[in-house]
Amino acid sequence: MTPNEQSISAARKAAEQWATRDTPFIFDEWYVLGFSHEFERTLVKRTVLGRDLVFFRTEGGTPAAFDDRCVHRSYPLSRGTLDGDTLVCGYHGFRYNAEGNVVEVPSQKSCPKGLGVHAYPLCEKGPLVWVWMGDPAEADEGKIPDQSWLTSSDWVTNQGYMRMEANYVSLHENLLDLTHLSYVHAKSFGTPDYASAPYQTTVEEGYFMLERHVIPTRLPPVWAKSTGLEDCANAARVAKSEFLSPALHETTATFYDNDLPAESRPEFSARTAHIITPESKTSTHYFVVDGRCFATDEDWITDFMHEQLLVAFKEDIDALEALEVTLENWNRPLYEFSVASDHASISMRKYLKKRADASEVKLHRRLHEGCSVPPASLNQHKEAGAAAK
Amino acid sequence: MTPNEQSISAARKAAEQWATRDTPFIFDEWYVLGFSHEFERTLVKRTVLGRDLVFFRTEGGTPAAFDDRCVHRSYPLSRGTLDGDTLVCGYHGFRYNAEGNVVEVPSQKSCPKGLGVHAYPLCEKGPLVWVWMGDPAEADEGKIPDQSWLTSSDWVTNQGYMRMEANYVSLHENLLDLTHLSYVHAKSFGTPDYASAPYQTTVEEGYFMLERHVIPTRLPPVWAKSTGLEDCANAARVAKSEFLSPALHETTATFYDNDLPAESRPEFSARTAHIITPESKTSTHYFVVDGRCFATDEDWITDFMHEQLLVAFKEDIDALEALEVTLENWNRPLYEFSVASDHASISMRKYLKKRADASEVKLHRRLHEGCSVPPASLNQHKEAGAAAK
Amino acid sequence: MTPNEQSISAARKAAEQWATRDTPFIFDEWYVLGFSHEFERTLVKRTVLGRDLVFFRTEGGTPAAFDDRCVHRSYPLSRGTLDGDTLVCGYHGFRYNAEGNVVEVPSQKSCPKGLGVHAYPLCEKGPLVWVWMGDPAEADEGKIPDQSWLTSSDWVTNQGYMRMEANYVSLHENLLDLTHLSYVHAKSFGTPDYASAPYQTTVEEGYFMLERHVIPTRLPPVWAKSTGLEDCANAARVAKSEFLSPALHETTATFYDNDLPAESRPEFSARTAHIITPESKTSTHYFVVDGRCFATDEDWITDFMHEQLLVAFKEDIDALEALEVTLENWNRPLYEFSVASDHASISMRKYLKKRADASEVKLHRRLHEGCSVPPASLNQHKEAGAAAK
Repeated sequence: MTPNEQSISAARKAAEQWATRDTPFIFDEWYVLGFSHEFERTLVKRTVLGRDLVFFRTEGGTPAAFDDRCVHRSYPLSRGTLDGDTLVCGYHGFRYNAEGNVVEVPSQKSCPKGLGVHAYPLCEKGPLVWVWMGDPAEADEGKIPDQSWLTSSDWVTNQGYMRMEANYVSLHENLLDLTHLSYVHAKSFGTPDYASAPYQTTVEEGYFMLERHVIPTRLPPVWAKSTGLEDCANAARVAKSEFLSPALHETTATFYDNDLPAESRPEFSARTAHIITPESKTSTHYFVVDGRCFATDEDWITDFMHEQLLVAFKEDIDALEALEVTLENWNRPLYEFSVASDHASISMRKYLKKRADASEVKLHRRLHEGCSVPPASLNQHKEAGAAAK
Repeated sequence: MTPNEQSISAARKAAEQWATRDTPFIFDEWYVLGFSHEFERTLVKRTVLGRDLVFFRTEGGTPAAFDDRCVHRSYPLSRGTLDGDTLVCGYHGFRYNAEGNVVEVPSQKSCPKGLGVHAYPLCEKGPLVWVWMGDPAEADEGKIPDQSWLTSSDWVTNQGYMRMEANYVSLHENLLDLTHLSYVHAKSFGTPDYASAPYQTTVEEGYFMLERHVIPTRLPPVWAKSTGLEDCANAARVAKSEFLSPALHETTATFYDNDLPAESRPEFSARTAHIITPESKTSTHYFVVDGRCFATDEDWITDFMHEQLLVAFKEDIDALEALEVTLENWNRPLYEFSVASDHASISMRKYLKKRADASEVKLHRRLHEGCSVPPASLNQHKEAGAAAK
Repeated sequence: MTPNEQSISAARKAAEQWATRDTPFIFDEWYVLGFSHEFERTLVKRTVLGRDLVFFRTEGGTPAAFDDRCVHRSYPLSRGTLDGDTLVCGYHGFRYNAEGNVVEVPSQKSCPKGLGVHAYPLCEKGPLVWVWMGDPAEADEGKIPDQSWLTSSDWVTNQGYMRMEANYVSLHENLLDLTHLSYVHAKSFGTPDYASAPYQTTVEEGYFMLERHVIPTRLPPVWAKSTGLEDCANAARVAKSEFLSPALHETTATFYDNDLPAESRPEFSARTAHIITPESKTSTHYFVVDGRCFATDEDWITDFMHEQLLVAFKEDIDALEALEVTLENWNRPLYEFSVASDHASISMRKYLKKRADASEVKLHRRLHEGCSVPPASLNQHKEAGAAAK
């Protein structure tokens, strides 16, 4: 091998360890299936990690989510109806209880035993309903990243939803790399000095942090107006990105007047939960909850900040969708050349890849064992076979 | 293997014997290519079993259908013109007679011998033109299912056509399973008691019948109004579904006032020929001829019944298209759990699978032997080769 | 093998040597990337041979074209901005000079050395900018087919562009076979006698010519009006098609009054450069420059001729797009039967196939060796790897 071949080969090998759009989904994880208010007394269909799910809320107030496919003839359950807590399939009227078990087949008196669809473990926390996409036996609610600020009285929040036609990995990387603010967001909340500001990173197993100190700076309109630091030529902007799980990224921006003494200056913090639920390889549900812990009774800031942030987030979506098309069209070997400031994001992508690999092994084993349906339903096979003879 | 693994394995093995959307088409069969009135003096393109065909009617009144691809440079013949009974290709003017043979090449004086496209055997019967998609040598018109009621003076009929974005197997199953009337057709011609009514089935090689006796019942508007049994609280509805071939399903509904003595009560029968011509794996030509043998001179019933039936058939299409999407999206091992009332439809699907397997073997042999063009045309290869040297 | 099987087998083998829509692109070739006037001070994206390119013109007036993908995170460079001759990526601000080398990374002071995108060799000749898609080391401008008539004062020309949803091979064949004029162009510039007119061909390595002498004839409106031979019943039309390269076809039509003596009769020549740049397997950039060397100061002819020609060229596009769909849908073994007048086009297709095969071998070797990025940039791998650790 010539030296060039060696370095190419080394780069290729390194890149194989990073998650890309081609990396399988991580199933052993909690994702946000929807906002609490979306779980009502109607059937809603949503695709998560390439799976069609149907969800609703029981009369008692508990959220429920199933695979959106009747065990009988594969009809989408989301086209059925709710009769109390019973989901009635819209094709032949098979009735499911809130645990996903078939409790009545209208064409016959006796109901087959142990028949049912996969009911996904859910956990409602504040404004979010989380779904566990892996083996239900391992659905540990303790693994859901803490987002108690969302329900804290110190914070005022607002919600939004956007669908992105791009892979979710690129969104995580976008959030953990903030040099793009000077370019993608040049017209919204980015400033030219952002890209070259000093930064520090934290890289731990499953936690990746990048913090940039843009000092001194002039705040862009959205922050200048919200904080009142419009005339401050020596403003500080401390931007922190935290990867908390494959399903959640948190960004916090803190602003202050750098001319004032550190002990007594007021500090203004704004935060966004970037809730990232892969829909398919090339599409992502992007939920956001944005909030602040200053001037919490000024409603106009709540609206103004939300509106301005969504403009900026749509700039990201627009960029990532263009990126996705480029990658889709690229038909040759592909290398990404990284620079020093990519340290945190590359570490994060390695982590996603490791998690995805582990998930694949487990998923393959479970599907192979037929456990995509609840074990109890397996006895039904024999009855069904008999019925069909 | 654990017991669960055994039952899964057994179910999987059983399901492999049923036709699904993934089952290849059955070529050794007569299908309806179109209504008689569609065969006129213009060239019509229609895709059947994944093949593009062009059809027309000769000056003498005989229908003709070819592969829609010129043997020369693959131009669609349907973009050509008819010059008497000669089809002239729209690209270089190659001329085909009604048997699909090339009879003139404008750029040269001598016409190559034995050159031609596949001409499909057709058979016009009443309002339908049937096409044989298999080996022409085996095109036995005796195999076309009898539909003489369509031209009987006892029946008044009406025609319709719908294109369905779903596989044809699901439509056959839909027709042979009538428990769905209470759900899919709850707003049109279904009633709640339909799903649990007693039924009987007949399962023979190539013939599958299911008959439901809904007695007593109240007729839905379409039948109540047509039969005049609007106020009858003890009406009878006997619904019969008959699979007659992979291309044809017939449903007959008979109504009467169950309070009247069997010997003297008037009975009202309505029938529909469900003519099912697969277009592609995920789309189907759905022709219908619906008729009745009562009050045959009341034109308003003819129109009213047809209109109401089409509303109901579109409910089926809507449901089957949703089903198709669900199956398309499903990316894990898939099992269908069957119940007792699926007996006839499962038997029917086993039959389709067996026919498809046999067809595949034959088709593969024929394509391998190059007989997708008429044998006579093969000599042309040498001439063509010579011309190109 | 039976005789039929033998002839099929022989035909199949012969056809394997002709280029079809399934034949890979020829990379070792000059193609027109765009008209000169398209190279301005903005970034334009265009896909050529399945590759997304971005192009622009430097302040000094030199055209430049790169792969449209930033080496850092694959963002399309066409979404960036020009800062003088520096292309600034729209995602993280990586800066490229006009040779495609990265000259600045905003997030750090030192710029990685040897990092860059592939810059395609370009050559501007008259109204056209040619791009070399193969190994830059082999970009010999001498291989660009001579088109000096485009800038000659003897000719008046006009330009047009059409996008065709069909493979480029079929367009070359369409141009080298003019029997289709009587059919595809029956309503524009074809006449019935065209298909059977005598012709001669020239077949050389990389040059294929077909000339048809339609004498006597009556000219179709576009030529009759332009030449003034409207009332001439003994007009001559000599049509010459020349394949000059996989990227260029030239057609020349000469008209005269055949009643006049050869020595003194005026002859009218019109010519079109058919500039064929494959976009993808199923789409082609079709640039045309059409001109004439008679009555060059009559502006109305310039406009009229151009307008009428474009009508005819769109008839070709329409036909070839229908052909493409037919081939896309065809799902069985496919043979093309050729006739004597296909001699030149088959020879041309054999040549394209041979070129494509040779290109494939080279391309595979280059991609395998990692040379899809400039060799100088390979050292960057190590730095990048280090940065990411």
